[in-house]
Amino acid sequence: MTKGKDVRTMPMSAILLIHCPDRKGLILAVTEFIKKNNGNILYLGQHVDAQKARFFMRVEWELQDFIIPTEKIGEYFDVLLARKFNMQWKLYFSGRVPRMAIFVSKLPHCLYDMLSRCQSGEWDIEVPVIISNHPNLEKPAKQFGVDFHCFSMTGSNKQEQEKNQLEILNKLEIDFVVLARYMQILSEDFVAHYPNRIINIHHSFLPAFPGAKPYHSAYERGVKIIGATSHYVTADLDAGPIIEQDVVRVSHADSIKDLVRKGRDLERVVLSRAIWAHVQRKILVYDNRTVVFN
Amino acid sequence: MTKGKDVRTMPMSAILLIHCPDRKGLILAVTEFIKKNNGNILYLGQHVDAQKARFFMRVEWELQDFIIPTEKIGEYFDVLLARKFNMQWKLYFSGRVPRMAIFVSKLPHCLYDMLSRCQSGEWDIEVPVIISNHPNLEKPAKQFGVDFHCFSMTGSNKQEQEKNQLEILNKLEIDFVVLARYMQILSEDFVAHYPNRIINIHHSFLPAFPGAKPYHSAYERGVKIIGATSHYVTADLDAGPIIEQDVVRVSHADSIKDLVRKGRDLERVVLSRAIWAHVQRKILVYDNRTVVFN
Amino acid sequence: MTKGKDVRTMPMSAILLIHCPDRKGLILAVTEFIKKNNGNILYLGQHVDAQKARFFMRVEWELQDFIIPTEKIGEYFDVLLARKFNMQWKLYFSGRVPRMAIFVSKLPHCLYDMLSRCQSGEWDIEVPVIISNHPNLEKPAKQFGVDFHCFSMTGSNKQEQEKNQLEILNKLEIDFVVLARYMQILSEDFVAHYPNRIINIHHSFLPAFPGAKPYHSAYERGVKIIGATSHYVTADLDAGPIIEQDVVRVSHADSIKDLVRKGRDLERVVLSRAIWAHVQRKILVYDNRTVVFN
Amino acid sequence: MTKGKDVRTMPMSAILLIHCPDRKGLILAVTEFIKKNNGNILYLGQHVDAQKARFFMRVEWELQDFIIPTEKIGEYFDVLLARKFNMQWKLYFSGRVPRMAIFVSKLPHCLYDMLSRCQSGEWDIEVPVIISNHPNLEKPAKQFGVDFHCFSMTGSNKQEQEKNQLEILNKLEIDFVVLARYMQILSEDFVAHYPNRIINIHHSFLPAFPGAKPYHSAYERGVKIIGATSHYVTADLDAGPIIEQDVVRVSHADSIKDLVRKGRDLERVVLSRAIWAHVQRKILVYDNRTVVFN
Repeated sequence: MTKGKDVRTMPMSAILLIHCPDRKGLILAVTEFIKKNNGNILYLGQHVDAQKARFFMRVEWELQDFIIPTEKIGEYFDVLLARKFNMQWKLYFSGRVPRMAIFVSKLPHCLYDMLSRCQSGEWDIEVPVIISNHPNLEKPAKQFGVDFHCFSMTGSNKQEQEKNQLEILNKLEIDFVVLARYMQILSEDFVAHYPNRIINIHHSFLPAFPGAKPYHSAYERGVKIIGATSHYVTADLDAGPIIEQDVVRVSHADSIKDLVRKGRDLERVVLSRAIWAHVQRKILVYDNRTVVFN
Repeated sequence: MTKGKDVRTMPMSAILLIHCPDRKGLILAVTEFIKKNNGNILYLGQHVDAQKARFFMRVEWELQDFIIPTEKIGEYFDVLLARKFNMQWKLYFSGRVPRMAIFVSKLPHCLYDMLSRCQSGEWDIEVPVIISNHPNLEKPAKQFGVDFHCFSMTGSNKQEQEKNQLEILNKLEIDFVVLARYMQILSEDFVAHYPNRIINIHHSFLPAFPGAKPYHSAYERGVKIIGATSHYVTADLDAGPIIEQDVVRVSHADSIKDLVRKGRDLERVVLSRAIWAHVQRKILVYDNRTVVFN
Repeated sequence: MTKGKDVRTMPMSAILLIHCPDRKGLILAVTEFIKKNNGNILYLGQHVDAQKARFFMRVEWELQDFIIPTEKIGEYFDVLLARKFNMQWKLYFSGRVPRMAIFVSKLPHCLYDMLSRCQSGEWDIEVPVIISNHPNLEKPAKQFGVDFHCFSMTGSNKQEQEKNQLEILNKLEIDFVVLARYMQILSEDFVAHYPNRIINIHHSFLPAFPGAKPYHSAYERGVKIIGATSHYVTADLDAGPIIEQDVVRVSHADSIKDLVRKGRDLERVVLSRAIWAHVQRKILVYDNRTVVFN
Repeated sequence: MTKGKDVRTMPMSAILLIHCPDRKGLILAVTEFIKKNNGNILYLGQHVDAQKARFFMRVEWELQDFIIPTEKIGEYFDVLLARKFNMQWKLYFSGRVPRMAIFVSKLPHCLYDMLSRCQSGEWDIEVPVIISNHPNLEKPAKQFGVDFHCFSMTGSNKQEQEKNQLEILNKLEIDFVVLARYMQILSEDFVAHYPNRIINIHHSFLPAFPGAKPYHSAYERGVKIIGATSHYVTADLDAGPIIEQDVVRVSHADSIKDLVRKGRDLERVVLSRAIWAHVQRKILVYDNRTVVFN
């Protein structure tokens, strides 16, 4: 599924994500840097976590008329500001269509949802490949014109298969990976290749019901609300930084099958909101928590 | 706080809560029993838990013109139906104002809420006593005209103090107990005196964050939604059958103090909905889960 | 898109939807009818609207061992019960895959969602045809293997085009029609062919913001929550009986474009819940309101 | 109900609310003003309404070490910045306990809720007076130790009674007024005395069901969700800028009485959130819409 336009167009705006120890004058310093170089701020969000004495900022500005050449912005910002304030930062440019790989197993609902959003133009995201450990979802992949690779996982071949998968991702210049009900646990090594760039959807309101069969557990516990959680994948199962959650009311009248059905709608929408926030560069991660600017 | 009317008025309707192994003809048998004795059904709710092959029913009917005398209905139902179908059942009558004891520690928000609902007539519930392990909330108790008993708990005197508390509850003919942020764990023995008649409010979306300081844990985990849970108290801490839950969205911008503030509103409303369902006799408990007829 | 099985399989259960003036003995009469003929009740839901003194009931029972032949159930029920109690009723059988026609204009999100649910097996619904007044969505129709008919509407040709559309629906034995952001108003005559069988999705929380451009109106009014409404189509625009609604929180930070984006997710899920309830035969309509059994 | 401390303590921080035509350099100018005078920013929120080309900002900073004397900050800001950028602005100081008057008629639920929050210390708000057009709620007023004034409204005496009410408000140095289900329409003249300082709670999801008896209308229309809306009062009934809304799910099973009961919980919490945002100085009003910084 290739967009009918050049994926690397002239960037219109720059987005800077920053966090650093809190101190006086941080907002001023950043806004001064942009103003002095003739940038027009489109968005500024900041947050101070008083608990952790940490400052977070997202700022977006127009590049038209900006004095520093686009390819030099990072360098200048680093030298002039970041080092002084001990800032962790990332710089992104609009107009760069992100490239997403989707990992699936047998359940199709999130896959259809994501492919529909991409194909219809709702999302401006490239999907060069779908990877699975089962052949079941080849049909929708083909139907939407996306390459489908099946890697059977036997337990003993995990290391080798992950190596093959990483090669594909690397070759296709994948920016981030989405686990859309992928029923395999990624190795620590795999995760390390895409830090805060692998998004998982878990079918419970974490930290309740981590691991397998959360809808069964929810039924057994008799909860009155079920949830879904989208988070960045870390080496710890279902324990990575949470990006988005949502819930739906259930009752005694709902069987496990009903929970699964209601949960599907949750999973679709929670995962899609997380992906949206990710590609809009609205997310900062610090200390296993996310700051998601609205 | 005593209502200005006789608490034992002529009952207008009977409510029967039933559960038993599922089989054919249960609804028919019950409706026939009521019809034949000239009762008019006001409400009938039923539920079959296919997973557990269990049948649940709530039926309410007018007593005017009902042939069986009120005090004999239980006996007749037991002999004619319950034994045959192996039914667990409870019979209640409208017009009997339930008597609620409130246990508190230092936090006043749920207490004010409940007393306001009773005094304003929103709830038709008697509150003969408030029991606490701290003197802090004596003022609102007095203000609403409710007796306040303070039992300091030292760890070593728990058994004795609970005995004193039970004596009060017994003497005041208390129907059910509400733990409104009561910061003590009741003994198994105490709980056994009021099976499925002690309602607790826990300030998290159980089973996430049981035990102490759930708002702190929620903050640390970085959840995007917090919740509150009302449940019947059992011998296992925060593990009893859930009656009601609700949630509210939070974000990185919310400090622990903000979570506490937002949580207070949740706790109030979740607890009040649970109490409402309880006194309306809408709740059946089976296998640590509730069936709550709407 | 044709299911790989015979669409008319042996029915496993019968579903009866009833409403009538409220009186004593209605539940008993219906359950007796089923029991005497050896049916096993799978579900019974009833509701009395005290305001309107109207009784509503949904009952489903197994047909295996049922004494009355399937094709005679309606007749027997009518003669033995319905006439006596002045009941309005409908009888459905499981195993009959409903046939849905989808009407669209240019917006694809609901269309993709419904086709994905059908193709993946989440829904057991046949979609023999998609009808549009624009050619834009022919591609997804083809991609999912569904016939696509485009009828340009000029204002003057409406009557004729609707006649052509009705012929197609009739020929394809369509059970119900879904308007998935179809930007045409159906004539009273067209609606009369499918009473309570045309489901529309409106992109506001009705009765707020009926008619065109509700997201613009919501922005202008400065609401803090937006909604979507699925309802049966009647001759009055956006005034038919509401089946399902849901909402999402918005803020001053959301532009109209953001409202449209957030609203899309609402529309998808609200419409899909309404379709689910419709094909599960859970909906009764009376006096322009719905009773939706859960 | 008088707080046990001096209501005018030393302010710890200043809060500036600004809106003006959008242009480059606004954030920089404000942050520079604060930094140069040795203020430490505690919070900065900004919003650009692209639709209306309007810039909004809320900034809070510590006054300790701030060079400009507290009583001169407004003047300096006006001269140095506001005139240049054509800013509308308001300046507030922490430590000033706001003084709230409550207007009621007969319904007590919001009144109890607000008084409980004030008395328990959840809110740091003074309530010097409760004004009503009925004597019914004198008891809770007395119980919480608040002066209660009853002004019977006959239609013909409205102008005079409002004059008397305004005199009281004026004498008591009331900062803002809350209409807690006050069943009278304030005159345009009255409203003009407290622009964006009169908060009303309306028991529907506006703009649906304005005016009288919204729960009856909601029942008649058969909506599946009901709401409550808190807004600033303007001369147009129920049409002022919306501060906060929330909703709760209902069903066919809910009678009008049930809607009223569920709605009460909504009204309480929606009104209380609006009051919280107001006294935290988080609200800007422009063009009949609110910007509510979180």
